[in-house]
Amino acid sequence: MNTLATQPISTPGSTALSSPQTLTAKMPDLDALLHAQTIAVVGASSDPRKIGGRPIAYMLANGFAGKVFPINPTQTTIQGLPAYPSLAAIGHPVDQVIVAVAGSKVKEVVLDAIAQSARCIIIFSSGFGEIDEAGKQAQEDIAQLCAQAGVLLLGPNCIGVFNARRAMYSTFMTALEHGILPAGNVAIVTQSGAIGSYLYGLAGDRGVRFSHFLATGNEAGMDVADAIAWLANDPDTRVIMVYLEGCRDGRRLRQALLAARANRKVIVALKVGASEQGAAAAASHTGSLAGSDAIYDAVLSECNAWRVSTLEEMADMAYACSISALPKGNRLGVITPSGGVGVIAADTASGCGLTLPELPMPLQQQIKEIVPFSSATNPVDTTAQTLGDRTLFNRIMRVLFSYEGFDSILSFNANLGQSDAEFDKIKDELFALRRANPELLVAVCTRAIPSVVKQLEENGIIYFSDPARATNTIGALAQLAAGFAAGQPQAVSRKQPALTLPTGPITEYIARDLLAQHGIPFVPQAIAQTGEEAVQASARLGFPLAMKVLSPDILHKSDVGGVRLNLADAESVMDAWTAIMASVAQNCPGAAIEGVLLSPMVAGGVEMVLGVTRDPVFGPVVMFGLGGVFVEVFKDVTFRPAPLSSHDAMHMIRQVRALPLLEGARGSDPVDLECVAQALVALSEFAVACGDELESVEINPFIGLKSGGYAVDALIVKRADAAQTGGH
Amino acid sequence: MNTLATQPISTPGSTALSSPQTLTAKMPDLDALLHAQTIAVVGASSDPRKIGGRPIAYMLANGFAGKVFPINPTQTTIQGLPAYPSLAAIGHPVDQVIVAVAGSKVKEVVLDAIAQSARCIIIFSSGFGEIDEAGKQAQEDIAQLCAQAGVLLLGPNCIGVFNARRAMYSTFMTALEHGILPAGNVAIVTQSGAIGSYLYGLAGDRGVRFSHFLATGNEAGMDVADAIAWLANDPDTRVIMVYLEGCRDGRRLRQALLAARANRKVIVALKVGASEQGAAAAASHTGSLAGSDAIYDAVLSECNAWRVSTLEEMADMAYACSISALPKGNRLGVITPSGGVGVIAADTASGCGLTLPELPMPLQQQIKEIVPFSSATNPVDTTAQTLGDRTLFNRIMRVLFSYEGFDSILSFNANLGQSDAEFDKIKDELFALRRANPELLVAVCTRAIPSVVKQLEENGIIYFSDPARATNTIGALAQLAAGFAAGQPQAVSRKQPALTLPTGPITEYIARDLLAQHGIPFVPQAIAQTGEEAVQASARLGFPLAMKVLSPDILHKSDVGGVRLNLADAESVMDAWTAIMASVAQNCPGAAIEGVLLSPMVAGGVEMVLGVTRDPVFGPVVMFGLGGVFVEVFKDVTFRPAPLSSHDAMHMIRQVRALPLLEGARGSDPVDLECVAQALVALSEFAVACGDELESVEINPFIGLKSGGYAVDALIVKRADAAQTGGH
Repeated sequence: MNTLATQPISTPGSTALSSPQTLTAKMPDLDALLHAQTIAVVGASSDPRKIGGRPIAYMLANGFAGKVFPINPTQTTIQGLPAYPSLAAIGHPVDQVIVAVAGSKVKEVVLDAIAQSARCIIIFSSGFGEIDEAGKQAQEDIAQLCAQAGVLLLGPNCIGVFNARRAMYSTFMTALEHGILPAGNVAIVTQSGAIGSYLYGLAGDRGVRFSHFLATGNEAGMDVADAIAWLANDPDTRVIMVYLEGCRDGRRLRQALLAARANRKVIVALKVGASEQGAAAAASHTGSLAGSDAIYDAVLSECNAWRVSTLEEMADMAYACSISALPKGNRLGVITPSGGVGVIAADTASGCGLTLPELPMPLQQQIKEIVPFSSATNPVDTTAQTLGDRTLFNRIMRVLFSYEGFDSILSFNANLGQSDAEFDKIKDELFALRRANPELLVAVCTRAIPSVVKQLEENGIIYFSDPARATNTIGALAQLAAGFAAGQPQAVSRKQPALTLPTGPITEYIARDLLAQHGIPFVPQAIAQTGEEAVQASARLGFPLAMKVLSPDILHKSDVGGVRLNLADAESVMDAWTAIMASVAQNCPGAAIEGVLLSPMVAGGVEMVLGVTRDPVFGPVVMFGLGGVFVEVFKDVTFRPAPLSSHDAMHMIRQVRALPLLEGARGSDPVDLECVAQALVALSEFAVACGDELESVEINPFIGLKSGGYAVDALIVKRADAAQTGGH
Repeated sequence: MNTLATQPISTPGSTALSSPQTLTAKMPDLDALLHAQTIAVVGASSDPRKIGGRPIAYMLANGFAGKVFPINPTQTTIQGLPAYPSLAAIGHPVDQVIVAVAGSKVKEVVLDAIAQSARCIIIFSSGFGEIDEAGKQAQEDIAQLCAQAGVLLLGPNCIGVFNARRAMYSTFMTALEHGILPAGNVAIVTQSGAIGSYLYGLAGDRGVRFSHFLATGNEAGMDVADAIAWLANDPDTRVIMVYLEGCRDGRRLRQALLAARANRKVIVALKVGASEQGAAAAASHTGSLAGSDAIYDAVLSECNAWRVSTLEEMADMAYACSISALPKGNRLGVITPSGGVGVIAADTASGCGLTLPELPMPLQQQIKEIVPFSSATNPVDTTAQTLGDRTLFNRIMRVLFSYEGFDSILSFNANLGQSDAEFDKIKDELFALRRANPELLVAVCTRAIPSVVKQLEENGIIYFSDPARATNTIGALAQLAAGFAAGQPQAVSRKQPALTLPTGPITEYIARDLLAQHGIPFVPQAIAQTGEEAVQASARLGFPLAMKVLSPDILHKSDVGGVRLNLADAESVMDAWTAIMASVAQNCPGAAIEGVLLSPMVAGGVEMVLGVTRDPVFGPVVMFGLGGVFVEVFKDVTFRPAPLSSHDAMHMIRQVRALPLLEGARGSDPVDLECVAQALVALSEFAVACGDELESVEINPFIGLKSGGYAVDALIVKRADAAQTGGH
C-alpha cells in the first residue's frame, strides 16, 4: 500500500472523520465485495495462470455458486465460459467488477463499471500510488469517481479477496495454485498481498483454515478498518489475522477493532514498523508511514487485539482459536512422562501469565497409587514407566481431568505421535475426557504424523510439537479471554463543548487557569505585588512556601535569583521578597516586574508527568509517566488516544514499569491513583475540547500524594505556535 | 537427575573443588565412554525393544566397528551375537560395561565390572536417588566404589550415550527406533533423558545431525560439566546443546564452558528453573535445585553460551551453526519480492542487534536499472515483477552479493520453494554466489519441499520458513560471533592470601577497615573524643561534614539524635557535638560513648550498591546495582562469580538497565566507571580471600563521582553469624 500519506477519501456509505468529536463512523457494507453473486472479470484470460485468468480458474475449480462473466473483446469463450466484449454486453448490472487490465486502461473500465451500475470494483492493476505522484493522482481520481457514484472500491494494486465458504475467489494470489484449502473460520486482512499469500500457505501448513481473505492494496477506497469492521459482524469468522503497516484514520481503525472486540472475535495483529529500522523500511516500502507505533500498540491493547511479531506466532494463535474456545482463566494443568518438560512448561507459564495450581491431596494420592514414584502436584510427572504401559498414563490423565481447578490442560506425549499404533493406546481415553470437559482448553504436545494431528484437531484438541510454544500460546489465549471478560471499554463521549484557545502565546499562568477550569487540580498559589501582600497571602496558603518572581521578561527565573524555596515563616517571606527584588533589579535591569507568585511546597509524594501530544493518525493522545529519569531516560511512558474513561486512565497508570513506586514501594505511602486517573481524564477532555488547535500539553510535575495530588507546572503549545517553531 | 543436593563426589582423574582458590580442576577423560572399542551389556536381551536389547540392536543395525559382548547367563546367543554368562567369561577386560539389570542387582554388577578392570560403567537402571533416601545412599556407595577404583561412572538412571561417528549406541533411547540419523557435528548433553530423546527427534526434523549424545542421569559419577569439557576438545563437534537443571559445582561447570568457548564451540543452553513456578517444578522433579538462576545466567553469558527458552530455538541455533560458519559481524542484507517481509525483517533485526546498512548509491542504481520500481536501499524489495521473471531476481541478487558491507544475507522467496521447477530458476545463481562468498552467512526463507531444503543445506545455506525466526537466528549467531571476537575472559588468579575474619560480630568500623585494606576506597573519616578534637579533625577533612555518635550500644543512631548532617563550619561542628552528646545522654542513658565519627558529605554523584553473596553452587558471587529503587524495587542488579577481572567488572556494570544514569543522563556528569570496576575487583578478591568464612558483604552506598568514588557504609556478615540468625 502506498497511499498512507494521501488525503482521507470517504468510502461509499461512510462518513469521513476529521475530528475526534464524531462519536462513530459508519463503515461501508462489503456485501457486494464478499457476497457477490455476479462477477465480471475485465481483462479475462484463457490462461489460468495469468492475472486475468486465475480468479476464473479458481472459481470454476472450486464451484462458485454465483455467475462469472469474462470480459474480453477478442474471445468468445474463456475457460469454458461465454465471454463478453464489454460490461454492457452482459445485459444487466453485476455485483462485482474485477479489473485486470493495464494501469493506463483502468480509469476507462471504472467509468464503464459505474455506468453499468456495478456495486463494487476490485482493481488488481498496479502502476498507481505505489509508483509515483502521477499514479497517486490517478488513483485518487478513480477513488473520487467511485465515492461519488456510491460504488465500493478495493485497490488498486491489490491481489484481491476471497470468501472460501462461497468459493468466491476474486483474487490472483498464487498460493492457491498449490491447492485450495477447505473453508474454515479464520480471516486474513492484509496490507501486503505477498504477506497475505505467504501467510495463507504458512498458516495453512499449520492447520489453519480460512473464511475470508482481503488484501487492501493501495487503499484508495476501502481500507483495513473497513475490512475488520465487516468481519466483526460475520458469523463465519472467529479469528481475524491482520497484517498492518499503518492507516490514515486511527479512530476508524479503533472503532473497527472495538466492534470486533464487542463480538468476541479474536484479532491477531502483526503491526510492523515498531523499530527505527523497521519504520525506515516501511517508509521506503509504502512511501510514508505515519503515526507513532506506541499509539498503535496502545490501541491494539485497548481493543484486546493480540499483537505478534512473527508470522508463526500469528499462525499458532489463529490455529488454536479456530480449534478451541478460549480458556476460562489462566490455570494450567500439565501432564508429562518427562519431568524436564514439566519444568519447561512451568517456566514458560510464568512468563505468560499462567499459574499451575497444585492438585488437591486426594487426587495426588490417587495418582501416587497408580504410579508410586510419579510427581503428582502439577506438573504431573507420570515418569517413564507410563511409556511402557500407556494404561497408567490414561488413568493419571483421568485423575487430572477430574480436577475442576484447571482452565487448560497440556499433555506432553514425547514421540508417541510418531505412530498410529501408540497413539491408539491413549486416544480413546483422551477424546472421551475432552468430550466430557467441553469448557476446558486441551492441548497435546508430541512429534506427530499427519494422521495423529488430524484426529487431535477433529476432536477439538490443539496440537504442538514444542512444549514452550504450546504453553505460550495457551498463555496468550488466557490473556485474551481475560481481556474479553473485563468487558468492553467504557463508552466515552467524544463530544466536548469546543474550546477556543486564547490568541498569543499561552503563558504558564494562563495554561494553569485553562487546565484548572477543566478539572485538573493545581497546587494553590497567590500573586503578591508587595512584601506585605506576600506575607498576607502566605498566611492563607500555609508554610513552607516557594516564591517566584512574576515577569514576562524573565524566562529563567532561578538563574537571576528570582526563586526562593522552603520559606518557613512570615519573616522568611519578607526576607525573600526583598532578596528577590534586589537580585532581579541587579541582574535584569528594565524587566517588567508584576510581583511574585507564591505557592506552598508540596511535601513528599511522587512526581509524575501527564501530557497530550498530537498523533497524525490517532489525533490527540494522552501520555503518562513518572517524573525525572523514568520519562527522560527510561522512556517508561504509556499512551492512549483521547478521550479517556476512568478505566482507560487507570489502565494507563498501571501499565508503567515504575508502578511499584506509586504503590508504596520501600515503605512509602501509596499514591492516590484515583486522583491521578481523574486528572488524566480531565486532561483528555480538555484535549478533545481544544480540537485541532492544540499541539501539546505537558503537566510536569504532577505530584501524587497519599490523598489527592496537584499539578505544579503546565505548558500548553498551540498548533499554530508549534508550526511556527518547526514543531514541538 | 536427583543428586543435586548430594555431596560432591570426585570423579576419577578429577580433583573435587571445594574452594574457589583452586585454579583449575582436572576433568575426567571420557574416551572409555565415547571411544569404547569393547562394550559389555549386562542384562542383555534378545528383544530389540527391551532396555537391555536396544543398545545391541542399534549398534548391530548401524555397524559399530568395535565389539559388543551380551552378558546373560540364560542365553548362548543374543541378537546373533555369542552371549556370555558373566563379565569374567569374556576373558579380557572391556572398555565399557552397560548395566541394564534391576536396581537391586546393580551393585553386584558394578563390583564385578571393577574386578574385571572395566574402564567405564554406564548404569541404565533406575530406583536410586530419584526414588528415595535409600536409593540415594545406594548410588553414593556405587559412586564411591567407582571413584576408588578409578572407573568412570555414568548414571544411574540414565538413558545412556552415543557417538554417531563410530555407531556406538550405548543407549536405550526410543527416539532411535524411528530411524537413526546420519552423523553430524552437533552434540546433546542433557540432564533429562526424555528431553534429550525428544530433542533428537525435534531437532532432527529441523535438519540437525548429531555427533554425540550424553544423558547424565543421576550424576552420581560424572556430570554435565565433564561432558561439556570433553566435547570442548572433540574435533567432530561444532555445537553443544545443553539441557541443564542445575549442577553441584558451578566452578567446574564454568571451567567446562570456558574450555568450549576457548575452542569456539557454540553452546546452546536451555537452563530451566528461571521462574518460581519452574524452580518449584524442578525441585519436585529433581529433589532439590540449588543455586540462583541469575548466577547461572551470568555464567552462561560470560562463557558466551547462548541461552534459549524453547527447544525449537535450540534446534534453530544448532541447525544454523552446523551448516554455516558464524557471520563476521552484525550487518544484514535482505532481498525480498515483498516489501512487507522486508519490514518484518528490519523490525526483527532491531530487536536482535542486527543493522541493515544501506547499499551504496552505485549499487542502488544498478538495481533500479534492473527493476525500476524496486526499493534498492536495504531491505531490497525486488517487487512482484521478479516473481514472474526470476532472472530479474537473480540479477538483483548478484548486485546485493557484490557489496562487501554485509556479514549475512537473507533472501525471502515466498512460495518459490514449493516447486522444484521454480527453485531451479534461481538455484544456480544462488549457489554460485554462495560459493563465491564463503565468508558470508546466507539464509533463505521460503516454504520449501524437502528436495529444495536438502539442496540449500548441501550448499551451506540455512533454510527457514518464517522470516522473523530467520532474522532472530542470524542475530543470535552474530552476537555469539561478537562474543568470541571479544576474546577469552581474562584469566583471574583465584589464589588470594587467605584472610581470617576477626572473631565476634564485625562492626561497620571494622568492616570499613578490612575492605579499605583490600583496596576499596572509603570516604575519609576521623574519630573525635571531644568537641575540640572534632573541630580539629573537620579542618583536615574539609566541609561540609557529617557527624555520627560512636557507640557499640546504639544501633539506630538517627533515632536518638545521634547524627548531624551538612555541618558547614567549625562553629556548626562544635554545636553538633554539644547537641549529639546532650541528645544521646537523654535518650540512651548509660550507653558507652566512644566519641563521634566525622566524614565529609560527598556532593552529587550516583549511589550504587556493591555486594557479595554466597551461592551454594558458584560460591562467592559479586553483585552490582544502582542504589535506592533500582536495587530494591526494580531488582536491576547483575552478578558474577568471584574473582573478577577488570573486564568482568566493567561488563557487570554495563549490564544494568539503569546504565544511562551512570553515563551522564540528563546533563549530569558521567561516573568514573573505571573506579567502580576496580572497587568490584577488589571486593571480589576480598571475598575469595575470606573463603568459606564469608556469608555476605554489602557496600551501600558506594558513591560514584566524575572522578573517583567512595564507599560510605559497609556491612560484612560471617557465615557463622548468618547461620546463627537463620541466614541473611
